Amino acid sequence: MSRNILVLNGPNLNLLGKREPEVYGRTSLEDIRKAAVDRANKHGLEMDFRQSNEEGEIVSAIQDAGDKFDGIIINAAAYTHTSVAILDALLACEIPVVEVHLSNIYKREEFRHHSYVSKAATGLICGFGAYGYELAIDAMAQIIDKEK
Amino acid sequence: MSRNILVLNGPNLNLLGKREPEVYGRTSLEDIRKAAVDRANKHGLEMDFRQSNEEGEIVSAIQDAGDKFDGIIINAAAYTHTSVAILDALLACEIPVVEVHLSNIYKREEFRHHSYVSKAATGLICGFGAYGYELAIDAMAQIIDKEK
Amino acid sequence: MSRNILVLNGPNLNLLGKREPEVYGRTSLEDIRKAAVDRANKHGLEMDFRQSNEEGEIVSAIQDAGDKFDGIIINAAAYTHTSVAILDALLACEIPVVEVHLSNIYKREEFRHHSYVSKAATGLICGFGAYGYELAIDAMAQIIDKEK
Amino acid sequence: MSRNILVLNGPNLNLLGKREPEVYGRTSLEDIRKAAVDRANKHGLEMDFRQSNEEGEIVSAIQDAGDKFDGIIINAAAYTHTSVAILDALLACEIPVVEVHLSNIYKREEFRHHSYVSKAATGLICGFGAYGYELAIDAMAQIIDKEK
Amino acid sequence: MSRNILVLNGPNLNLLGKREPEVYGRTSLEDIRKAAVDRANKHGLEMDFRQSNEEGEIVSAIQDAGDKFDGIIINAAAYTHTSVAILDALLACEIPVVEVHLSNIYKREEFRHHSYVSKAATGLICGFGAYGYELAIDAMAQIIDKEK
Amino acid sequence: MSRNILVLNGPNLNLLGKREPEVYGRTSLEDIRKAAVDRANKHGLEMDFRQSNEEGEIVSAIQDAGDKFDGIIINAAAYTHTSVAILDALLACEIPVVEVHLSNIYKREEFRHHSYVSKAATGLICGFGAYGYELAIDAMAQIIDKEK
Amino acid sequence: MSRNILVLNGPNLNLLGKREPEVYGRTSLEDIRKAAVDRANKHGLEMDFRQSNEEGEIVSAIQDAGDKFDGIIINAAAYTHTSVAILDALLACEIPVVEVHLSNIYKREEFRHHSYVSKAATGLICGFGAYGYELAIDAMAQIIDKEK
Amino acid sequence: MSRNILVLNGPNLNLLGKREPEVYGRTSLEDIRKAAVDRANKHGLEMDFRQSNEEGEIVSAIQDAGDKFDGIIINAAAYTHTSVAILDALLACEIPVVEVHLSNIYKREEFRHHSYVSKAATGLICGFGAYGYELAIDAMAQIIDKEK
Amino acid sequence: MSRNILVLNGPNLNLLGKREPEVYGRTSLEDIRKAAVDRANKHGLEMDFRQSNEEGEIVSAIQDAGDKFDGIIINAAAYTHTSVAILDALLACEIPVVEVHLSNIYKREEFRHHSYVSKAATGLICGFGAYGYELAIDAMAQIIDKEK
Amino acid sequence: MSRNILVLNGPNLNLLGKREPEVYGRTSLEDIRKAAVDRANKHGLEMDFRQSNEEGEIVSAIQDAGDKFDGIIINAAAYTHTSVAILDALLACEIPVVEVHLSNIYKREEFRHHSYVSKAATGLICGFGAYGYELAIDAMAQIIDKEK
Amino acid sequence: MSRNILVLNGPNLNLLGKREPEVYGRTSLEDIRKAAVDRANKHGLEMDFRQSNEEGEIVSAIQDAGDKFDGIIINAAAYTHTSVAILDALLACEIPVVEVHLSNIYKREEFRHHSYVSKAATGLICGFGAYGYELAIDAMAQIIDKEK
Amino acid sequence: MSRNILVLNGPNLNLLGKREPEVYGRTSLEDIRKAAVDRANKHGLEMDFRQSNEEGEIVSAIQDAGDKFDGIIINAAAYTHTSVAILDALLACEIPVVEVHLSNIYKREEFRHHSYVSKAATGLICGFGAYGYELAIDAMAQIIDKEK
Repeated sequence: MSRNILVLNGPNLNLLGKREPEVYGRTSLEDIRKAAVDRANKHGLEMDFRQSNEEGEIVSAIQDAGDKFDGIIINAAAYTHTSVAILDALLACEIPVVEVHLSNIYKREEFRHHSYVSKAATGLICGFGAYGYELAIDAMAQIIDKEK
Repeated sequence: MSRNILVLNGPNLNLLGKREPEVYGRTSLEDIRKAAVDRANKHGLEMDFRQSNEEGEIVSAIQDAGDKFDGIIINAAAYTHTSVAILDALLACEIPVVEVHLSNIYKREEFRHHSYVSKAATGLICGFGAYGYELAIDAMAQIIDKEK
Repeated sequence: MSRNILVLNGPNLNLLGKREPEVYGRTSLEDIRKAAVDRANKHGLEMDFRQSNEEGEIVSAIQDAGDKFDGIIINAAAYTHTSVAILDALLACEIPVVEVHLSNIYKREEFRHHSYVSKAATGLICGFGAYGYELAIDAMAQIIDKEK
Repeated sequence: MSRNILVLNGPNLNLLGKREPEVYGRTSLEDIRKAAVDRANKHGLEMDFRQSNEEGEIVSAIQDAGDKFDGIIINAAAYTHTSVAILDALLACEIPVVEVHLSNIYKREEFRHHSYVSKAATGLICGFGAYGYELAIDAMAQIIDKEK
Repeated sequence: MSRNILVLNGPNLNLLGKREPEVYGRTSLEDIRKAAVDRANKHGLEMDFRQSNEEGEIVSAIQDAGDKFDGIIINAAAYTHTSVAILDALLACEIPVVEVHLSNIYKREEFRHHSYVSKAATGLICGFGAYGYELAIDAMAQIIDKEK
Repeated sequence: MSRNILVLNGPNLNLLGKREPEVYGRTSLEDIRKAAVDRANKHGLEMDFRQSNEEGEIVSAIQDAGDKFDGIIINAAAYTHTSVAILDALLACEIPVVEVHLSNIYKREEFRHHSYVSKAATGLICGFGAYGYELAIDAMAQIIDKEK
Repeated sequence: MSRNILVLNGPNLNLLGKREPEVYGRTSLEDIRKAAVDRANKHGLEMDFRQSNEEGEIVSAIQDAGDKFDGIIINAAAYTHTSVAILDALLACEIPVVEVHLSNIYKREEFRHHSYVSKAATGLICGFGAYGYELAIDAMAQIIDKEK
Repeated sequence: MSRNILVLNGPNLNLLGKREPEVYGRTSLEDIRKAAVDRANKHGLEMDFRQSNEEGEIVSAIQDAGDKFDGIIINAAAYTHTSVAILDALLACEIPVVEVHLSNIYKREEFRHHSYVSKAATGLICGFGAYGYELAIDAMAQIIDKEK
Repeated sequence: MSRNILVLNGPNLNLLGKREPEVYGRTSLEDIRKAAVDRANKHGLEMDFRQSNEEGEIVSAIQDAGDKFDGIIINAAAYTHTSVAILDALLACEIPVVEVHLSNIYKREEFRHHSYVSKAATGLICGFGAYGYELAIDAMAQIIDKEK
Repeated sequence: MSRNILVLNGPNLNLLGKREPEVYGRTSLEDIRKAAVDRANKHGLEMDFRQSNEEGEIVSAIQDAGDKFDGIIINAAAYTHTSVAILDALLACEIPVVEVHLSNIYKREEFRHHSYVSKAATGLICGFGAYGYELAIDAMAQIIDKEK
Repeated sequence: MSRNILVLNGPNLNLLGKREPEVYGRTSLEDIRKAAVDRANKHGLEMDFRQSNEEGEIVSAIQDAGDKFDGIIINAAAYTHTSVAILDALLACEIPVVEVHLSNIYKREEFRHHSYVSKAATGLICGFGAYGYELAIDAMAQIIDKEK
Repeated sequence: MSRNILVLNGPNLNLLGKREPEVYGRTSLEDIRKAAVDRANKHGLEMDFRQSNEEGEIVSAIQDAGDKFDGIIINAAAYTHTSVAILDALLACEIPVVEVHLSNIYKREEFRHHSYVSKAATGLICGFGAYGYELAIDAMAQIIDKEK
């Protein structure tokens, strides 16, 4: 039976490739989505890929994911550091969670060193840019495999 | 003349009874609503009972409540610890506020020990599970009575 | 078989109604006791109601309560914030504990925001003045009921 | 060619003039808008003036502003102190930002002394009430002028 | 009509002159009492002078003082730094309070730099040894005089 | 009757335009004074404009200002962050105070994020370079107007 | 000439063996006393063994001990972490002090990691349960021996 | 042979009685000086009484005092909390120092709770208003007496 | 031309699979090495795989790696949190660094949340157990590829 | 069957008796070893006694100890306060650990008040000088006895 | 062409050799000046040597130095720890700065461990007493040499 | 009789001149050694110059130095900030210690602002690059001279 994963992207990630290309590169979120779909397919995984600027919308998406998906890959962006609501949703969703960030948040400003998402995630991948999503899919595939 | 109270529930409380029943019990938010309506009726209070995962939606609900309700009972859940916006709305609404939590937040993780809601609430009831809502309604009824 | 609860009041609560009535109201501790007895009786509970200015005396009362009572309602007043000894006694007494405060301690000075009692209490009720004791008795009655 | 600026108002600012007039005065947000339009016109600036209680909505508005406006004046209200998402949007929008607050936030509670918005703003104006918006427009006009 | 003041001494002050004379000198608490009585008499004040090692006993003494004395001079010794209960009693007693310490507590260990008593005292005299009690009586006499 | 305002400049501001032009621009303090005089005249305000490297001299100037001026605009520069003496003088002078800084101090080193001046100022303008003085004069004119 | 030591036990230690045997074991304080007496006798030491829930009572006992005993072994339990009064008494008593705890306090909650008693004790033994008292007596015997 | 003391007053104390009389009373620094001279004369002490708004001037005055005076009474006002230079001068002057404050600085804002002066002073008197200077003179007289 | 990578393992990782299998699983470091070699080979990478309990030895290995390897994958284990020396070596080695941990260190004790290694690493992978090494090799291969 | 224990001594302990005899006494580490062997023999324990200045060497010794010894007594000296690697080795070794220090580390500088070793040790003995090793052997003998 | 350096000495350094010779030695500031002149001459440097107790005077001296000197050697004494104004002047003066202290400030009280001067200085020399000035001149000579 | 000094260099200093020449310059540790030997010879000092990446090796070298050398010059590099073991060895070695760093550690990252070595060093020289070693030798020569 086919497996599904949800890839959730937080605020401002829709700007990828459009703004500050010298900082974030020219890869757009759509580029990331395509590469992620390819990677997921290699593992026989189906994938839903979403972005939202709304904390509450992300919370709701996580809540719904519990019944429909086998795992969540989340780049909560700015909400990583401030959202207890997202943490609580992840803690409640009862499916594996992988945290991903484009940049190495531990090399950035002090206030980006704390992640509420980490408290609910099996593991964390950060600093590898867009390629980090592919690593996250590999990791998720392996987690789902072990659980079978 | 009849009195009205608003019961506001924050993010993830819609999951009650559905997820982690071993932790949060099998009482759903709908069960809580029914018990709350009964309790309110005993005090001759009408009640509006809502849940939202959106911080801004909760802010707007509080703003509107100032004109329509005689008191707010709020379980802001995760937003309790992070939302200055909800605090500001409560400070502005000029009707009594009672804070309620299902669990005793002061026995949980350090980051759940701070409540912005408390700065605007007459009082706080936490740790008594679903029954805490009934106590909160009793408390609110008594506050409204005294103000009459 | 009849159930008993102990209501313990900490330092300076004997002054209630006598001093600073503009702050604490005109209700005396004796008034609170009477209302508490009435409330307890409605639940078929017997009640012992005490006040002490001595930390050690409160510790001893809690120790003895383990064998004689079915629950402790405690307003430890100033000792709430400083007494590890009372915390240890409460942790050891093996009967349910409900914490109550007349004022909302989380709206007062910073040093009153920390409660050792909370670490041993099922739940907390604060900010509702004398009426908080009645809510605490309701809460305790419900806790004892569930345990039967 | 005509220049455009966006004036963004955060949560609870829609209540201005309606609630707590003894604190915030009787000037409504609509009054502020009118005075701001007049001021902007004197500088030959067109202005879009919005208010939202939703963090995500404000993030999206800032994202869109990058292409449509020449500058953002923002009073993020409560989100000033808590929103990394708004900070990230401002950092990405690549147009000048002026921060404004009605009250002097550095004279208020400790938790209002920190502003994420400041990290992305050219400058800050606070404490001058509604008139601060007019000063902010003057400041923005001067910044846009220098960039021409 | 004659005026009365209460001089309260906290834990271990009964040891004065008996132990560590090289540190605390050879003046006993009885010597201090005598000098204090003389000084009080010069101001036409009667004086009650007590020492206790018990926090609760000191709390009770302060409570009773409200009705019987015109002022309290307190050297709470170790309880200065730890007792919220004594602070609350002093805040409630509604008569002037003068804080005195033999040593300059602000030159000693860090944990002796904080005084709960100071929050309730008109003024503080420390570092002048036994003579500090005489200064405190002068200060109290002047305070009582002004209130007449 | 004519109104007077005092513009006070703290340590090192006499260097403006002479040193580090790549950082602080080529505008000298004399240039700022001239633009400020012009702006003040538009509001019918007379202006005294001073600079001092001495904390005590600034304190004395503020003390004298209470009787001679209708408002103080102050850029205390480095003393902003360290001088309780200037704060106390401002608190005592009983005329309105506007705080101004050339740079956005909240984007600079951590130790520049705290301002003692803010505790005594009606409002704060920072980050707009020399132009900030003109905004401060506008703000002061409006404050004085309202008080008339 | 015979030597005497005082063994002082703080609040809640009278509960040993009666409550929470799964945590603290089935050894009662009386069992500890007996084993301690035996151990002391082997060293030719006489021993006084007391328990109190009262901070002031413990302070007084330490004060008296200075003249009557050659050393104090103290398990101040909860007062370890909160009592400056006990510290001051120990500092004044001028006989050797050995600190003992049943559990390893440095493996428990953060607030149990600080000991005021340690500042006055020659040495500390913790984590060895009831047997720690016997080690403490051996240590005290050795200290007294060296002083002879 | 006659003894001399120096009374040093820090910044803004020259304003006493002129500004904010509702806060600081109507007693001027000149009134304090007169009362202080009278008090000093009773002890056979000559007195020099100065005020300065300049930290460096106060440092120099303390340096000179070492050779000319038998003691320094200092109310360093705002410099109390910020001046290591005054502390160093006091540590070097080798004559007794008494610290005095009009208000009880430990009841005021957090940043006024720390005193560098205390680290060099024999004792501290605060909270007794102008009368505190007279107490300080008594204290100094007693210290000088003991040293003779 | 063939590429080489160094995989460095810090203290206690030699125990993997031998101790606490219920915590760390039954995979030994040798198992990890084999899987890593396979993975590296798929990318055409040669690999050196070492473990050391010595901080200095790890520092030296990193120093040597600069000339011999094209990248370092490091699981510094306990030294992650304490070794500035390893950080300095990594900063100096001028080849890409990938940080890997078996467990999610941000879900463990507070003192494991800080990583000196992160300050020198391109990216971080943690929480995926032995499989994390394979992800790290993929990530390193991709980094080396991009640099070619 | 005979039991073995390992006694591990950290950096600088090899200097005992050679340097600073006025501080550390004239007992050398060899003296301690001899006394320890005697004590161990009384309990029928064999003992290996080592010292190392190398953190990694101590880690390796602990790792090896798991298979060869029945318990570890460790005085990690300076590494007590800084070595997570030693902590991890102790946590992994699965035999009882007793922590010993010559001095009472809680009476020394602040940075010596924290012990990583304590998190892995059954108990702690400190402040009794060389004799502390004998107490530690007694404690270990008793722990091993109970486990049999 | 001849080179000039400015040696600036902060508050209380004029007391050197006069007060507390047991602490600071018998070398006066004049002795230091002479030795410094000799040392400077050996490097072909002319030297201006000043002392001031006034923060503002030191700021002004640094400002002027930018045009007249090739380097500043500064012992800011107490102002080291408190003066942002001196830091700002040093940052602006655009000539090399060497920081010197007589004592090793990092072995003294906690509040002397922070230096604002360090943020603007090429290097720091402390703990070598008067000889430190000679080392500082050597260091400055070498810096000026390299810049030629 | 000839004097000997030991110059100890900590981790990564062997890389000097080889890596990051744009940061650390092209001077190698061997260059520094040669210049240091020359400088030492001018003072008639013999010199041993070592580098190690191993904390324990440095500890041992310091221990041995007590008997063989007249002073230690130490650049502990990264271990400066983390090694209590090196501090303890330096405290025990009973010969003068001079601390040297190539860079001004107080201008670098926060975690490099704390030095354990400083607590044991007579003085500190930092920020002068390789030349700092020569200054350190001068300083050491002067210290040894004074001790003769």
